[in-house]
Amino acid sequence: MKNMQQPSGMPAHRYTPYHEQIAVELPDRTWPSKRIEKAPRWCAVDLRDGNQALIDPMTPDRKLEMFQLLVQMGYKEIEVGFPSASQTDFDFVRKLIDEGLIPDDVTIQVLTQCRDHLIRRTFESIEGAKQAIVHIYNSTSVLQRDVVFRSDREGVKQIAVDGAKLCLELEGMLAETKVFYEYSPESYTGTELDYALEVCNAIIETLDARPERPVIINLPATVEMATPNVYADSIEWMHRHLARRESVILSLHPHNDRGTGVAAAELGYLAGADRIEGCLFGNGERTGNVDLVALGLNLLTQGIDPEIDFSDLDHVRRVAEHCNQLKVHERSPWAGDLVYTAFSGSHQDAIKKGFERMASDAAAAGKTVDEMTWAVPYLPIDPKDVGRSYEAVIRVNSQSGKGGVAYLLRADHGLDLPRRLQIEFSNIVQARTDSEGGEVSSEEIWSIFGDEYLPNPSRLAEDQWGRFELRQVAASSTMGGDTTLEVVLRDEQTLRDVTASGNGPIDALLSLLRAEGVEVSLHDYVEHTLAAGQDAKAASYVELELGGERFWGVGIDHSSSHASLAAIVSAVNRGLRTRVIEHATA
Amino acid sequence: MKNMQQPSGMPAHRYTPYHEQIAVELPDRTWPSKRIEKAPRWCAVDLRDGNQALIDPMTPDRKLEMFQLLVQMGYKEIEVGFPSASQTDFDFVRKLIDEGLIPDDVTIQVLTQCRDHLIRRTFESIEGAKQAIVHIYNSTSVLQRDVVFRSDREGVKQIAVDGAKLCLELEGMLAETKVFYEYSPESYTGTELDYALEVCNAIIETLDARPERPVIINLPATVEMATPNVYADSIEWMHRHLARRESVILSLHPHNDRGTGVAAAELGYLAGADRIEGCLFGNGERTGNVDLVALGLNLLTQGIDPEIDFSDLDHVRRVAEHCNQLKVHERSPWAGDLVYTAFSGSHQDAIKKGFERMASDAAAAGKTVDEMTWAVPYLPIDPKDVGRSYEAVIRVNSQSGKGGVAYLLRADHGLDLPRRLQIEFSNIVQARTDSEGGEVSSEEIWSIFGDEYLPNPSRLAEDQWGRFELRQVAASSTMGGDTTLEVVLRDEQTLRDVTASGNGPIDALLSLLRAEGVEVSLHDYVEHTLAAGQDAKAASYVELELGGERFWGVGIDHSSSHASLAAIVSAVNRGLRTRVIEHATA
Repeated sequence: MKNMQQPSGMPAHRYTPYHEQIAVELPDRTWPSKRIEKAPRWCAVDLRDGNQALIDPMTPDRKLEMFQLLVQMGYKEIEVGFPSASQTDFDFVRKLIDEGLIPDDVTIQVLTQCRDHLIRRTFESIEGAKQAIVHIYNSTSVLQRDVVFRSDREGVKQIAVDGAKLCLELEGMLAETKVFYEYSPESYTGTELDYALEVCNAIIETLDARPERPVIINLPATVEMATPNVYADSIEWMHRHLARRESVILSLHPHNDRGTGVAAAELGYLAGADRIEGCLFGNGERTGNVDLVALGLNLLTQGIDPEIDFSDLDHVRRVAEHCNQLKVHERSPWAGDLVYTAFSGSHQDAIKKGFERMASDAAAAGKTVDEMTWAVPYLPIDPKDVGRSYEAVIRVNSQSGKGGVAYLLRADHGLDLPRRLQIEFSNIVQARTDSEGGEVSSEEIWSIFGDEYLPNPSRLAEDQWGRFELRQVAASSTMGGDTTLEVVLRDEQTLRDVTASGNGPIDALLSLLRAEGVEVSLHDYVEHTLAAGQDAKAASYVELELGGERFWGVGIDHSSSHASLAAIVSAVNRGLRTRVIEHATA
Repeated sequence: MKNMQQPSGMPAHRYTPYHEQIAVELPDRTWPSKRIEKAPRWCAVDLRDGNQALIDPMTPDRKLEMFQLLVQMGYKEIEVGFPSASQTDFDFVRKLIDEGLIPDDVTIQVLTQCRDHLIRRTFESIEGAKQAIVHIYNSTSVLQRDVVFRSDREGVKQIAVDGAKLCLELEGMLAETKVFYEYSPESYTGTELDYALEVCNAIIETLDARPERPVIINLPATVEMATPNVYADSIEWMHRHLARRESVILSLHPHNDRGTGVAAAELGYLAGADRIEGCLFGNGERTGNVDLVALGLNLLTQGIDPEIDFSDLDHVRRVAEHCNQLKVHERSPWAGDLVYTAFSGSHQDAIKKGFERMASDAAAAGKTVDEMTWAVPYLPIDPKDVGRSYEAVIRVNSQSGKGGVAYLLRADHGLDLPRRLQIEFSNIVQARTDSEGGEVSSEEIWSIFGDEYLPNPSRLAEDQWGRFELRQVAASSTMGGDTTLEVVLRDEQTLRDVTASGNGPIDALLSLLRAEGVEVSLHDYVEHTLAAGQDAKAASYVELELGGERFWGVGIDHSSSHASLAAIVSAVNRGLRTRVIEHATA
């Protein structure tokens, strides 16, 4: 079984492997043996990095809506803009401060390049805030030093240090505002590690980081350039080497160019970081910033409180979609429309059994399902824990089997079909979906079910429901003796009074049918009352043998004995119908 | 700077950490020190795992279109369906075989549960194929053994072994078809490692894996349950322990529940796997299968041939969107609408400089840009290498700075604005975008530019372009002497013949204007011919000082001297216009 793959012609020779650009060597790394035990310190950058990547940047109203959402969810550090680069951002920061919209325990963060006039303007923007993080950055990567700044390592470091010094100068002018600092060596992933360290340490010294006023050192994967383990190695290396480590909050800011931003954040956090910057649903430049929703709910699945409230995730999504004017994808982790949905038969079957087990275990423990440890196949989170219903969990199309169909009939109509009936009916549904394609709604399944098994009112009127119909039934019995059934029977177009006896009503009806010339025997019989709220009806399922073949019939009635008689008629009519059709097409 | 985060109230106590469910211990792991050096063996499962997760599963036509796309791209192993579970899938497999649609070097793969009648039906489906992979699976996880199968380890292993034995029996009936096998312990990530190994080894023995007929052992993260390093550890452990390792093709099948599917595939591949199963753009159950496009192009960025042709990625996307009836998200790695787009000013500026450097380096080397090693900030792949244009790279909105605006004027109109003019004009554009919001197209930028700097035909007609207009110009000069300019000048509503001299036409026109009472001096002057294909015009840029302020003017004309004179008039009119406005609003 040879590998038949061929060269593609893609110009791989134009690209330089990461390890030939930047050396990251850490053979004694410790992060792969660690586990995440608690939530990181979060910083939401939706209003800055997210906003700057939108086709239609947020209006002031949308900005405020996003800010308030982030506050409600529990984010305590929120980057609110780049006030020196945009008048809109400047005005928004002023609005937050002037109108007292920032809760006392929330710290706003503002970004600025390390440039004199931009830093000055940034300090103007935060005047009067109780506290604020001034986030200064300059690009330190090999490529940008060469192409953009045309400067050397020393020169680019000086840009950062000069910026930090100016900040300290300006800080004195803000009497009311407690200022904290964050520094990002932008394009960190394209920067030699020793140089990134040199610049960061210079900033740590310049800003005189102390335990009581730590400096945030943020190491952005401005562009994600390698597998996430390499980012983690680089973070562990920095974590070990940063000066005054106890006075530094080590922050991550992963982008998602390679589709591994979430992994980079998680592995980088294992590697010693304290803090993660990201955006809801992974909004942000190009492929986006790391997705705060994925990170937060990944923690939940490990029994760790994310310290962020995702209990109404659909609301979070609606607000984000409105503010960003970008849809959240159907498969976006924990939040997309399809992520709790199973279409495939085996998945649906397992989910159905998982739900049943949860319910029976809860009942046995005298608890509600909500109190039980969650364990349902293919559903790593209980959709209810993020405010979703179970409605979308099981959806039926041509890829579905009996499990999904049975689940929907049970969930929406209280019917608990016997296993062989599930198989029979799901084949009927699948024949429809295979030929017509597309998804089948629960309503359509119910309609197919009624059409197949129940006396269809419109067909009844046209006498097409089936050969037989019980118009009136009277049963009389003596204790310990036989049951006699007196029936007004419609047989095709004629009505007749017929009587038959048996050891019970079912047996009596079968005798009656045999007397009418239908060779029929009972194979299986199940009856249950419908689930609570279904108006105290009974559902009967009978499996009959008729001409060597087996057919299920269903009857639903307030009277349980009527239900069983109706089920027999249903099965017989189905059997006769099939044989007529087979005859006709033979 | 205390961490102010609070408990969220999310029910973390309901979830069991992965390490308490499944023990994965590999302190001497080697994968974190490895690097990917070549493409894995790919298997595309869009027609099976992808298809079973669609709201509207593929019709036969859409199935065929997807199959042919995958073949064209270079996939050699393609899972084409679950023929025993769906008549549509069965018919599709038959169609591929009966109509000879499978190239000789492509092997189709069909999935089936390890159940007698399903396996039999599966073998019927592949009769007549040149070769096929029969992919058998059963769920082996702790949870599914308990909840779904109600069986023990031995019993569930036996299901797999019995399935494999039946396959060998049925194989004899297919004279024309070379059959290979793949086995998946489904829900592998929820299975104890030693037990997964036990089952896989039993299958390897039963199927008698040999180097000339290896068995594919596929270890699916059916549900992604932990950080991707844990999956990699488990793969390395299996890689070390699997029986007859040289006769086993170790395959990965990561899902993306936690948003780390791409990372799991990459780290698992480092850990010793040979093969990866996934779907284009990460389609598949719930959050999807691992994204084959991300994986493939991630390799390209490292100088590794993905052995798959992504050179017309937009075509791939269109076909996949049609077949799946699901959109690819704007931020989907390498393929989304926005992933090569920069809106932010600093990014645009750096990209513009990167493009310029690529062009000048190429020119210096006597090569085309296509032949040069790619190195442009914020663009890890040359969009042209995947069939995209540069058009979408730089888009302008309120978050944009001079770089984007300048880039668009240069790319679309051949204008190479001096740096200070870039700043002046981008402020004009930003004032518009800040007040009106939204994106500004290249056409709109050109319109704003023309409105600001060039004689606007409609304004000209209404005499509103500005105070001055040169209706006719004649210049005469003696070699080594002064230039004399004879001009028909419109000054407001009056036309006059005016004459002035200077050491060149520009100097002469400035003298003329000073004689008209406009105190003006030249600060900077740049002229260039427009880029090729722009009809051999010249563009002139002059920066004048007028009343203590500086204004740029622009002139574009077939005659370079006319262009410079027009630029002066442009600057003067702008200056006077501004002063009139300031006067009026003062």
